[in-house]
Amino acid sequence: MASKGKVCLAYSGGLDTSTILKWLLDQNYEVVCFLADVGQEEDWDQVRSKAAAIGATKMVITDLRREFVEELCFPAIQCNAIYEGRYLLGTSLARPVIARAQMKVAAEEGCQFVSHGCTGKGNDQVRFELAFLTIDPKIKIIAPWRMPEFFERFQGRNDLLDYAASTGIPVTSTKAKPYSMDDNIAHCSYESGQLEDPSKPPPTDMWTRTDDPMTAPATPQDIQIHFEKGIPVKLTTEGKEITDSLELFIALNAIGKLHGIGRIDIVENRYVGIKSRGCYDSPAMTILRDAHLDIEGLVMDGKVRALRDQFVTHAWSEILYNGLYFSPEREFVQNSLVFSQKSVNGEVRMRCYRGNVFILGRSSETEKLYSEEESSMDSLVDFSPVDTTGFININAIRLKKYGQAKLEAGEGLGTK
Amino acid sequence: MASKGKVCLAYSGGLDTSTILKWLLDQNYEVVCFLADVGQEEDWDQVRSKAAAIGATKMVITDLRREFVEELCFPAIQCNAIYEGRYLLGTSLARPVIARAQMKVAAEEGCQFVSHGCTGKGNDQVRFELAFLTIDPKIKIIAPWRMPEFFERFQGRNDLLDYAASTGIPVTSTKAKPYSMDDNIAHCSYESGQLEDPSKPPPTDMWTRTDDPMTAPATPQDIQIHFEKGIPVKLTTEGKEITDSLELFIALNAIGKLHGIGRIDIVENRYVGIKSRGCYDSPAMTILRDAHLDIEGLVMDGKVRALRDQFVTHAWSEILYNGLYFSPEREFVQNSLVFSQKSVNGEVRMRCYRGNVFILGRSSETEKLYSEEESSMDSLVDFSPVDTTGFININAIRLKKYGQAKLEAGEGLGTK
Amino acid sequence: MASKGKVCLAYSGGLDTSTILKWLLDQNYEVVCFLADVGQEEDWDQVRSKAAAIGATKMVITDLRREFVEELCFPAIQCNAIYEGRYLLGTSLARPVIARAQMKVAAEEGCQFVSHGCTGKGNDQVRFELAFLTIDPKIKIIAPWRMPEFFERFQGRNDLLDYAASTGIPVTSTKAKPYSMDDNIAHCSYESGQLEDPSKPPPTDMWTRTDDPMTAPATPQDIQIHFEKGIPVKLTTEGKEITDSLELFIALNAIGKLHGIGRIDIVENRYVGIKSRGCYDSPAMTILRDAHLDIEGLVMDGKVRALRDQFVTHAWSEILYNGLYFSPEREFVQNSLVFSQKSVNGEVRMRCYRGNVFILGRSSETEKLYSEEESSMDSLVDFSPVDTTGFININAIRLKKYGQAKLEAGEGLGTK
Amino acid sequence: MASKGKVCLAYSGGLDTSTILKWLLDQNYEVVCFLADVGQEEDWDQVRSKAAAIGATKMVITDLRREFVEELCFPAIQCNAIYEGRYLLGTSLARPVIARAQMKVAAEEGCQFVSHGCTGKGNDQVRFELAFLTIDPKIKIIAPWRMPEFFERFQGRNDLLDYAASTGIPVTSTKAKPYSMDDNIAHCSYESGQLEDPSKPPPTDMWTRTDDPMTAPATPQDIQIHFEKGIPVKLTTEGKEITDSLELFIALNAIGKLHGIGRIDIVENRYVGIKSRGCYDSPAMTILRDAHLDIEGLVMDGKVRALRDQFVTHAWSEILYNGLYFSPEREFVQNSLVFSQKSVNGEVRMRCYRGNVFILGRSSETEKLYSEEESSMDSLVDFSPVDTTGFININAIRLKKYGQAKLEAGEGLGTK
Repeated sequence: MASKGKVCLAYSGGLDTSTILKWLLDQNYEVVCFLADVGQEEDWDQVRSKAAAIGATKMVITDLRREFVEELCFPAIQCNAIYEGRYLLGTSLARPVIARAQMKVAAEEGCQFVSHGCTGKGNDQVRFELAFLTIDPKIKIIAPWRMPEFFERFQGRNDLLDYAASTGIPVTSTKAKPYSMDDNIAHCSYESGQLEDPSKPPPTDMWTRTDDPMTAPATPQDIQIHFEKGIPVKLTTEGKEITDSLELFIALNAIGKLHGIGRIDIVENRYVGIKSRGCYDSPAMTILRDAHLDIEGLVMDGKVRALRDQFVTHAWSEILYNGLYFSPEREFVQNSLVFSQKSVNGEVRMRCYRGNVFILGRSSETEKLYSEEESSMDSLVDFSPVDTTGFININAIRLKKYGQAKLEAGEGLGTK
Repeated sequence: MASKGKVCLAYSGGLDTSTILKWLLDQNYEVVCFLADVGQEEDWDQVRSKAAAIGATKMVITDLRREFVEELCFPAIQCNAIYEGRYLLGTSLARPVIARAQMKVAAEEGCQFVSHGCTGKGNDQVRFELAFLTIDPKIKIIAPWRMPEFFERFQGRNDLLDYAASTGIPVTSTKAKPYSMDDNIAHCSYESGQLEDPSKPPPTDMWTRTDDPMTAPATPQDIQIHFEKGIPVKLTTEGKEITDSLELFIALNAIGKLHGIGRIDIVENRYVGIKSRGCYDSPAMTILRDAHLDIEGLVMDGKVRALRDQFVTHAWSEILYNGLYFSPEREFVQNSLVFSQKSVNGEVRMRCYRGNVFILGRSSETEKLYSEEESSMDSLVDFSPVDTTGFININAIRLKKYGQAKLEAGEGLGTK
Repeated sequence: MASKGKVCLAYSGGLDTSTILKWLLDQNYEVVCFLADVGQEEDWDQVRSKAAAIGATKMVITDLRREFVEELCFPAIQCNAIYEGRYLLGTSLARPVIARAQMKVAAEEGCQFVSHGCTGKGNDQVRFELAFLTIDPKIKIIAPWRMPEFFERFQGRNDLLDYAASTGIPVTSTKAKPYSMDDNIAHCSYESGQLEDPSKPPPTDMWTRTDDPMTAPATPQDIQIHFEKGIPVKLTTEGKEITDSLELFIALNAIGKLHGIGRIDIVENRYVGIKSRGCYDSPAMTILRDAHLDIEGLVMDGKVRALRDQFVTHAWSEILYNGLYFSPEREFVQNSLVFSQKSVNGEVRMRCYRGNVFILGRSSETEKLYSEEESSMDSLVDFSPVDTTGFININAIRLKKYGQAKLEAGEGLGTK
Repeated sequence: MASKGKVCLAYSGGLDTSTILKWLLDQNYEVVCFLADVGQEEDWDQVRSKAAAIGATKMVITDLRREFVEELCFPAIQCNAIYEGRYLLGTSLARPVIARAQMKVAAEEGCQFVSHGCTGKGNDQVRFELAFLTIDPKIKIIAPWRMPEFFERFQGRNDLLDYAASTGIPVTSTKAKPYSMDDNIAHCSYESGQLEDPSKPPPTDMWTRTDDPMTAPATPQDIQIHFEKGIPVKLTTEGKEITDSLELFIALNAIGKLHGIGRIDIVENRYVGIKSRGCYDSPAMTILRDAHLDIEGLVMDGKVRALRDQFVTHAWSEILYNGLYFSPEREFVQNSLVFSQKSVNGEVRMRCYRGNVFILGRSSETEKLYSEEESSMDSLVDFSPVDTTGFININAIRLKKYGQAKLEAGEGLGTK
């Protein structure tokens, strides 16, 4: 029987994607497996050998850590990106680089199809597929967990294990974690399973990228982060300086892990309209975001900041969360973001201690918007207090009319 | 010589306002002193006797704590109010209730003037005076620190001390703090003086509303906060339940103080266009804001939340910061805010530990937007995975055109 | 064979929905037909007799004109609603009342299904079905134009005509218009067919709700519209006064028709991501929107207006366009809208002439924000020009720092 | 007596600025006069000779028309700029080029001061002075209409005429217009005087840049405007092609004048919080804005457009109106604006007729977002109708929960 064509499958070595790999081969597809290294913990050799054992034509593993950090994580920091006030978008940030690399492999290997193991209710399927279809509008997608012939056949973990047993898929562990994880250099996410009850705290041994803040070192660690155009370019701590972007990020992850920084536990609104509970630990991202917020206070114009906060931060975060990195609106918003960061130059000193990042101080050699003289309540150099009277009076013109109208309506504002 | 009229002076008992009180009397004004109790630490009797000693006709002290908490702090919590990503607005929140109470005293005492000791470069003069003028468009304001005859005469602390000595103003302490403080039940603020160098950390003994997180108890404290329509209505901790709004707020301040929760150190943009460095500790507000953000995740519609975040939260915070509480735009925005909170009912359990507030879980007896069944990746009840394919494909129509145009322009998105 | 159940079908009497009616009957459904009277031109009796002839159990026609005008068109006017800067949303506005009435009939008649004749690429299917599913989450929808067994069978007009001929469906006219129309009291829309070439003007005889502006009367007509809380409550013209909402709207349609007011021809972005060309004539809506914009200038606070323009107008329009009238976000936004209109009381005088609506003047008996005295450049009553100096200087603090930085960077703003 | 220094005065030759010129000379300033040619009607030679006659050291007249059109008017068109839904910002747009040119003259002539004749209640003083102070933070400003020694002396037109008579200022006409005008190539504005009663229409002979639409030619004129990156680059009409920016703008002004296009009469909110009534006629700007809005429909991505509409259009318009052209926020917003226009390439055909600009059609040779095939309701090429079912169902997930909650609360959405 002739091959139905060639598929590039996002393959993690786990039970789900191993089943999909085998199932695709059964369906008479040729399969090239792809795995992105975005900094997750992984036994790469085991993945390679499993793919081969099951029958993949090829297993491509690509190290995307540097482009992930530089192209996605750093813009998120420039943006102070945050979803629904709390989530630092770790998973969303990884998807664009992974999807792009998978599409590159698909193109290089001559695949007509791409496939993945995302479930039908989550955000990731949307993020991956919108990226696939935007990168190559002609690519065909096989999403088994949305195909009745697949999801009706494999209705639970036992069905997958039975299939593995019967088809010789090597299974590493028959015991699944009681929740699902997605790890990358920006964070590890935990959801589903026992976490689906939002009233219960997660198991204490769940977190992988942060140690328990309550048993973190009693001695704090001071660090200094230097920004250029909103990008962290130097980390100084314990007598060392790190300037390489990837190394800097990894070092901050290590510091944040040690001091238990960056855990959140939230209920969020998925793009598909479902609420879900997620836990995330994002040490480096948390420290960098705090540092960036702080340096912006010193060096960024207040009005530009207000416009950026209201439009760029919100829009960029939502766009990324919804999987629209490859879109005209992301390009549009990011152009604004980059422009807003021209003057974000300077350094922040911080203290890491048991879940906290305390700001110790900040300074900038190049930016001059802050002036001690001007800021000082005691100095009248270059400042005429009489001006403020005029400022207040002009601002009051409109308000006095409002107050007067309230008085006349018998709703005077002065009486509670 | 005939009196120039009657002034209601915001009088704190400190050197500045004592000087203003004496100076107004010298100018032949009659002066009624007013002091708001918004929860600050104060020796009320001493203030009373100083006012009398200097020559005030009357000293009115009003306890505004409850209306401050209920009318300002709680809406701020409903709003997740925050200025420039970090400041919880403690000072700004107190100003409206103080200004209103002062205007009430002015009206009751038949004053034609109100006066205060705010400096000419700060936010507070703007906040107070816009409130005064809106509440009573005919009120006249005496702002000595913006009047050349005053500020040219009193050019530094020594001039004030000399004047006090020569006119018999009782001076409690001749040594000023090396920074200025403003305390109320929502927070204590610290700025000016030695804090004007933003690169240096504040003195470790500065903070008054929070103990040092590093020496806070090693044993965490668990608390539970219940919200109705976004308002905290019950605090449960260590076997006690508190439902009175003011008591609840005071209890959270005590808990937050003990566990070192709610310190920030920032550089912010004042309304008058000057950058300034401020430190703030806001224990109850910090805990409540975290709790409120969390319960909203569980019970608030995602789209309403996105609109509220982008418009209401930003606008309300800026309006309050800029002293525009008494304004048509605040009324307009708060109407939206209140509406958005109809379903914000439920409770959050949290753990307080050394500067941290960890979420332990949340639940709601009345709201049903979250569903474990629906959220579950393992369940297909009431969910057709095939639908997501359509959702993605329709969303991709526009994006495929974008991707195609990029390809044709030789700027394919798939190549980095 | 047992009935598959009962369907409430939106039935217009045209070829498409007649085919669907017959096809549903063929599929062994019982069908109740529903037609909303939203002010369109229609031969109601003919529709009734066709439905009966084809085999409908019942034909329900409901006059929704008043609730359409009061509940949808008037809020749109209060909102200055507009999509993409030009479209007054006529079709979108009708959908909620139609969907609600259809669901009411479905409930009354015990139907398990609702059905409609919308095509699979348009906005209307989305608007109707989101409304259906929100009103009754358990309702089942039959959308034949998205069902392969239907759309593959009926691939063009000829297939429909053949089916009609073979099954005895009465066909009024065998010649289709070269474009499709959707008429209601707010507007008539024209799209598809020959209009799909956006570079060509529409046929001159296409417009039905407006006469040709170029041959409209040479004599203008003056009208006066009175608003209360942003709602038009009285129309005065040619010695007549109309206060009934529906009559007022109909009268304005007649005036606008006569004078050729309210035609647009645009390319818009559909919710499903497709661009389409549409022509719309909306006489009453156009006149009312202009009048409302004008009265707001006189009576609405400037800051409230700016916030309303940026958030409410944009959001409400997009929500309606996308078919989300029955949604928490529409409720949320409309609550703001209504609040913003409290002071929108007054009257506007206008002149209608060949496509134009010229403003002749406006006034308000109750609102006092406008003051000739205050506005006058010649009067200094209650105004101290010196204040403006302070206003400017304080606003300049931040800007001078920007200018200075530019100078130091050698990018002085004074040189082009 | 020694000179107090050198002043660069914005001098128009009118009674006000002639008085200021003379008064400045009386105060012992040396005065260089400056007049910007921004396209207004003016007797340039008469201005020159009056300045000399009164005693100005020099009279500099600079033609700024091209930079005004290219640097301000065209970005306003790219932006669809509009203030409060109706005002095309003609005056605001001219201020930045005038202020910059005046500051250049001041620098070249060694002036320590700049001066102008703006009144103390208007927008223009703010616009000019913020520009002056940003361009050169050290410049000193003399604003006589805000100086008590000036405005108390000259309390009405008669005082000015008396002063002119007594000091030999040549007065062209002793009869003032019953309103004030400000003319430039973008528009002419009319305000104050008899226009201060907003309930009365302006005099019919007031308008200068537009002929009466009711007596405009009975024969319409068709034109075609070609855009590149949102900038009009070619005008074709009556067999002529114009590509020079200034000529194109002037030609559109002539066409618009002839056909009575671009008059508005509004009540607006000034930056200083006062409402004022203004009339404006802006022929070229009106035609260009309509054309630009139209071409964007064809070629701009829908999401980018929505973001641009909500943020850029609103913010840019408000920034310009408030006189903040020279500001970091304008730079920030304009960077977004320019980016948004990359694909705004194509041409629009329009018909000008008695106050109306009808769109006849639009097309683009380079942009492909619009597709007749895709748009067509009759074609299913590359479109699977089944997808829309999924799109709707996924969008309905959240809404069904809302509808269900309403049902359970007894507030079912299906009953009016």
